[in-house]
Parts: sequence; structure tokens; C-alpha cells
Amino acid sequence: MSRHAEVIVVGAGLAGLEAAARLRAAGRDVLVLEARERVGGRTWSVPVGGATVDFGAQWTGPGQPRMAARITGLDLETRPTFTEGRKVLDRRGRVSTYRGTIPRIAPWKLVEAQLSMWRVEAACRRVPKEAPWRAAGAESLDGQTALTWVGSRVWSEDVVDLVNAATRVIFGSELGELSALHFLHYLHSGGGLQKLVDSHGGNQDARVVGGAQRIAEGLAGLAGEVVLGAPVRRIDQDPQGVDVHADDRSFRARRVVVAVPIALAGRIRYSPALPTLRDQLVQRVGMGGTVKVFARYDRAFWREGGLSGEGVGTRGTVNVAFDDEGPAGQPGLVAFVTGRAARGWAERPVAERREEVLATLARWFGPEATHPTDYAEADWAREPYSGGAPIATFPPGSLSAMGPALRAPVGRIHWAGTETALESSGFMEGALESGERAAAEVLATEWGGEVLRPTG
Amino acid sequence: MSRHAEVIVVGAGLAGLEAAARLRAAGRDVLVLEARERVGGRTWSVPVGGATVDFGAQWTGPGQPRMAARITGLDLETRPTFTEGRKVLDRRGRVSTYRGTIPRIAPWKLVEAQLSMWRVEAACRRVPKEAPWRAAGAESLDGQTALTWVGSRVWSEDVVDLVNAATRVIFGSELGELSALHFLHYLHSGGGLQKLVDSHGGNQDARVVGGAQRIAEGLAGLAGEVVLGAPVRRIDQDPQGVDVHADDRSFRARRVVVAVPIALAGRIRYSPALPTLRDQLVQRVGMGGTVKVFARYDRAFWREGGLSGEGVGTRGTVNVAFDDEGPAGQPGLVAFVTGRAARGWAERPVAERREEVLATLARWFGPEATHPTDYAEADWAREPYSGGAPIATFPPGSLSAMGPALRAPVGRIHWAGTETALESSGFMEGALESGERAAAEVLATEWGGEVLRPTG
Repeated sequence: MSRHAEVIVVGAGLAGLEAAARLRAAGRDVLVLEARERVGGRTWSVPVGGATVDFGAQWTGPGQPRMAARITGLDLETRPTFTEGRKVLDRRGRVSTYRGTIPRIAPWKLVEAQLSMWRVEAACRRVPKEAPWRAAGAESLDGQTALTWVGSRVWSEDVVDLVNAATRVIFGSELGELSALHFLHYLHSGGGLQKLVDSHGGNQDARVVGGAQRIAEGLAGLAGEVVLGAPVRRIDQDPQGVDVHADDRSFRARRVVVAVPIALAGRIRYSPALPTLRDQLVQRVGMGGTVKVFARYDRAFWREGGLSGEGVGTRGTVNVAFDDEGPAGQPGLVAFVTGRAARGWAERPVAERREEVLATLARWFGPEATHPTDYAEADWAREPYSGGAPIATFPPGSLSAMGPALRAPVGRIHWAGTETALESSGFMEGALESGERAAAEVLATEWGGEVLRPTG
Repeated sequence: MSRHAEVIVVGAGLAGLEAAARLRAAGRDVLVLEARERVGGRTWSVPVGGATVDFGAQWTGPGQPRMAARITGLDLETRPTFTEGRKVLDRRGRVSTYRGTIPRIAPWKLVEAQLSMWRVEAACRRVPKEAPWRAAGAESLDGQTALTWVGSRVWSEDVVDLVNAATRVIFGSELGELSALHFLHYLHSGGGLQKLVDSHGGNQDARVVGGAQRIAEGLAGLAGEVVLGAPVRRIDQDPQGVDVHADDRSFRARRVVVAVPIALAGRIRYSPALPTLRDQLVQRVGMGGTVKVFARYDRAFWREGGLSGEGVGTRGTVNVAFDDEGPAGQPGLVAFVTGRAARGWAERPVAERREEVLATLARWFGPEATHPTDYAEADWAREPYSGGAPIATFPPGSLSAMGPALRAPVGRIHWAGTETALESSGFMEGALESGERAAAEVLATEWGGEVLRPTG
């Protein structure tokens, strides 16, 4: 006995829900299977100390048309990220403050930083968004880490450190883990390095009132039936359709959209087996490491001292911090522990973790940081149905050799998820785009709909 | 209703069977669960054209004491690899022949090749076998690919090509996929680069008569009960023991040894969840790509032409080839398609694959190569319970940050497999060593036995 639908979507994150909502809008009978007891995937909004904070994806900004449309369509609102005041730079323990995007460093380094940024911007534009494996020199770019690539173009260790700090928060990985090809492709997809790191007018421009998970909840209302607590373990294809097996239930449909992180899609069993290129890819593309820490306070003491609450550390535990004011003005900071510092975080003593984070916030923003009224950690490596955050890490050699298997449908199986997006890959915007593309693929293949764009 | 044992071993490859045999020899009640309908894991001996060939691991050599002891103890025999005659070098399509280990290239390049080899040998000795993450400069070595590391030490592209050719056959991966730290650690564990590539007196010195799988079959007789066709899907721990769930059966024991490839261990579900560091590691460590091709002939025409049957190609489809004479003198060649050339091999047309391989063998050894009496391919990426071959690829950033989770037991779960070995990691010898170590861990923890060595 199994519930039948026309299309099954695996994963009720933004990608899966967007696909489901679009399929339903096209008149299809859709069923969404979600492993967790909530929708939202890598968006997750939780009350901490009287204000809802975003444990997961948090910001949106200009140039994200799908996000803007969904936010408006779902009657949601955004509010700007607080950016007034000076920012903190912690350069290997030496703390200073600055204004603007690039921290105050020695003038020649500032020039070099700007030149480096231009060099990165120019290089990333040469990596095709739809098929990075076709970039000129793709194999060579993919045979080195982003650290090697940046390190051979930038002389100052300070500037390399800054690029690495930006990388850690964007990818949850160190420059030394990423393929240079993946690094440049991601930057191109996201609109360039400058846009990625700007908190004003860039991708950290605004937040959704009530939390980004509200978008997923809104989409779930448009997506047809959503079954929670149904982790998919096996997908069997036959000439007529697919059988999708959760722990204790089975479902049948004509097509399935798998919209879960790539590494976790590898933990589903497929019959017949997936193409070897796809299996080899999913064996390699692990999730980044990100822990978000929320400290709520009685007063925004950093603002009183002329600081915006934004800080960047090039080494140490905390990678970046931002002001995280609640919708009713509740003061708070959000700090990111990322990359190497996040690896094995869950295995370290709770008190030690808290002390390290708060000590860093105190050095950056003042001693009052050590006395939050509320404190919470979101360690995405502990989430069995995310496996890490924010996005998948493509190690050297994977994208150029196995990239073509990233989006290519396998029989009746289609792939979504922000890592498969052409535009704004890695962002909520990319998740929506990938869901839109997967829905169009399904409609075109099964019901003769229009294909929105080539799948690369 | 579940079968009880004192120890369950998951995976009847050499590592798992060695662990089981040692536990049984120590008087323990052992149960081995194997997903396939055969034992042997990455050893698999199959008749092709009247001779048994090794689809999987094939060679052993001096300095592999556990292999020597098991071969003798199981009444097996080895026979030497045929090495008489000249070898073929295919340097980007230019075919020449040579004698000795290092191909005939321009004299200054020969000097450079020898110097490079010494440099590699010296560097690899500085990476501790038991804890590569503690090497001086581990993070820096792990932040670059082996291609970057070799490329910055070797001037001649020809020499880099040769090192890459050796790497492809050893790892199933390109230099540009491997972390430099992993590359050097592997070489150190295996006794150095020279020993790894020598077909005479090195690790390709001899083969087991009847095939390497005979060792696994012999060990299975010493290992207690071996249940075939029982792929393990879930392992639950409680304070008293472990429940190990296969598709339709469950088993219970006090401890479990998981002896499957790291990436596939990640497809088992664990309750409670594994430490995040372990989960992050298994998300990244994919298997190499190796296709072994066997061509059997009426005559060993290459020998008649003064060739040994050994060839190396620095580009193109075939990476290396060796004489693969059967035990009764049946002529044959074995060719390796590896790394990038092996990716997606299974998805290419059969006729095209065969034509490409045989055309290369013909260029190397003579036109008769295009007319084999028998032809067979072993594509390890198609093996769902191997996921690739010969070994796991540690991408940049993984070993230095997550390496400590490679061998560390998790409660009642112990880890074996050649990738966890201290000596001869990646070889059959390493598989046996890892099984020996895991058995000692179990005995020490549960029954107060002696610990053979620290687990790093």
C-alpha cells in the first residue's frame, strides 16, 4: 500500500518546496517528503531570549529576484542589517577598527587588497556559470586549492588571511580545502567577491522579519501535501515510475525531485544504481563546517561604543560577528565559528566553547560581551539531515571531472538544491532557482512543458 | 529474534577477515557480515580465458610480513611478476622503450627525476605514519594538492607527468586531487616512492597463485561464521552492546568492527550519531577511480619483441600495463585505466572503451594486441560495496583537520580497512595490519587484552 502522487519531492528545504510549489501551480499532484519534523532545511528560525534568530541562512540582498518575489508574495517583510559605526578587525590577535568594506591595513596592502579583489573579480567571470568544467584551464584551476591560487596572486599574508576569512564564512571551509575552480565559480554565480562580503547593498543587506524559515513555511502552504518525519532511504526506478521508500512507508510517483545536500543524497540507495560519475561526485562533496552562536544582551553596548557589531577575525575561534538585533529592537550579536575551528566543535566541552566565543566578542566589542542574557549555538554538523553548512565543498579534481553529474537528471530522478543553481549558488536565492529549474525539467520531460534553460 | 555473537565484523575483505580470524583465535565468538555474495572485498579473482586474473588487488612484495605469513600459513604460493625485457614509455603519444625503473628521458631530466625522487623520499619521512596531522607544517601541506607540491619542486613537465602516472595507478586519483599531506603520508607508509613503483623487488614483485582472493577465502575459514548477502544499514549502540541491522535481519554483539571503505561506512546509519568530526571526514574521502582491463592472447607477442609487457602512459586512456601471464603460462596483459580517464567509464559505449584500450596496447606492444582471445573489464566504480578503487582519496584539508577521527573507536565501534593502517596503508598488507590492530583494540577494551600499538 503506497500513497501515489504525480511527483514526489524529497526534502522540504527552500529548493524542494519551490519545486513543489511550482509543480502544484502547474496543476500537478505533488507530495513532499521531509526527514525532519519541520520544513526549512538550512533555514531554521528559533526564539532565543525573546527574539527569533536564524540558526541557518539569514540574509538576502539586491540582485536576488526570486527571494524578493517570494518574500513579497508571501506577505513577508525584510529589515536592514544594522551597519552603523566602525567595524572590528582581529588580525592574528591584533584588534583594530575600520569603516568600509576593506579593513584598515598598511596603505600598500590596501592597494594590494583592492588589486587582488579586481583580479579575483576578473578571473571568476571567465568561469561559465552553467558549466565551470568548460572554463579555459578548468583542469589546471581544479588541480589546485583556492589557497594556492590566491597565494600565488597576493603577496601580503594579511590580504590572504582576509580572503580566507571571507571564504570561511561563505563556504564553511578554508581556502585550502576548496578547488580554485569551485571558488571562482561560486564567486561568479554569486555576483563577485565584493558583493559577497558587503553587509550593506550586498548579500548581507537584509533579513526576513520573523526569520528566513518563514519563507519555507509559506512555500509549504503552496506545495501540496508535506509529510514530515519521513527520511527517504531508497529510490527505485522502473519504466513507469519511481518508488520512494521512507523508513516505514513507501510512495509512488512518475518522477522524483531530490532536493537534499549532495553528500546526503549519497546516503539514499538507488535502484538501478546511479551512474558512476554521479556516485563518485557525491562521495567527495562534503558539507562545510559552520557553527552560529547567538548572544543576546540587555544593551547594545557595542553601538554605544561606536561599533556596528561587525567584526572579522583572521585566526582564532570566531570568524565573523554581526549585530543581530531582534525585530522589536532586542540587542544581540551573532558570531560564526567556521572551517577548521568548527571541525569537531560538538565534541569539545560546552563551557570551553562558550568561554572562547565570548572572550573573542569581549576583545572585539567590550567586556560586557562575556555576560549575555541568553546564549545559543547552532552546530550544523550535528544536524543529521544537513550534515554541515552552509554549502558543499568541492575539493580539487571534483568539479572539472565530475561536475557534469551535478544537475544531470538520472532517468526519472531530478536534482535540486542551492549547489545546483546557476545564479546565486549557495544562497537562498540559488535554492529557489534550483527548485524552479527542477520543476521545469519535470514538466518538460513528463508533460511537455517549456524548459526554462539548459541544464548545462 | 537476532543472532548474538561477542563481536560482529562488518565487511569480509582482508581487513575484516583478519580481524575476525584473530578474534576467533583469541577464543571469541565472531560473526562476519558481508554485503556481497562473496568474500574478498577489493580482492576478487575471476577466470578470464582459461586463467584466473585478479580483478582487484594483485601484487605483493618484500617488506609485507603479514602477507607473507598468511600466504605461507594458508598453504598458498606466489609467483614472480614477469619483468624481462624492455618497458614502454608513452609520453603524450611519443612511444619509446627503456630498462630500469626510470624511463629514458633526456639526461638532465633523468638527473632531475632522480633528484626529485630523493626529495620526495626525504619529505615523506617527515610525515609521521601514526599521525600525519602532527607533521611539521601539516596544515600547509594539507592546504595544497600533491600536484602543486610536486610542481613547485620539479621543473620538467615530463617528470611531473611521470610522477602523476605513478600516482594514478597507486591512488586511482590524479596528483591534482590529492592533498600533498596524504600523498606524502601514503608514500611513507608504503616504504617510499621507489618501492611503490618498482615491479621487481618492490610492491609489484609477485602474485598469489590462484589469485589474491584465495587469501580472503583462507581467512574466512579461520574467521568463524561469515554471513553473505547481508549489507549492513544501521548500527545502534547501547551501554551493553550493539545492534547491527542488515536489510532483513538483525544481529547483536558486545562490539563491532566496521571494515568497509570509509565513504561506504558513511552510508551506514549510526545511533547515536557519530562524532561530527568523523561524519565530516567520511563525507569527503571518496574512492579513487580504477578500471582494470584484461586481454588474453594466444601468444605473448610482446615478449617475442623483447618487451616485458610493462608500459606507462603519461596521458591518454591507459595509465599502465603489465604482463599478466596465467599460472600455466597463459599469455595476457593487464591494463589500468585510472583517475580522470576512469571517471564515468561505465557510462561510455562498451565498443569505444574496448577500442581505446586495445589501440593503446597495440601502439605499445604491437598490432596483435587488437585481437585478444578474451577481454574483460573490472570497473570498481560500479561495485556498490567498494565505490571505487584502489583506495580512498583524502582531499586537501581533510587529513590535517579530521584525520584524528580516522581510526578512533566510537564507543563500541572500531574501524578497520587498509586506509586506517600505519604500515603499507593502501595495500593488502595494510588491510591485514588494520584488522590485526582492530582485533587487538576490541580484545584490550572488552577482555583486557594487550594493546598492540597506540591508535594515533
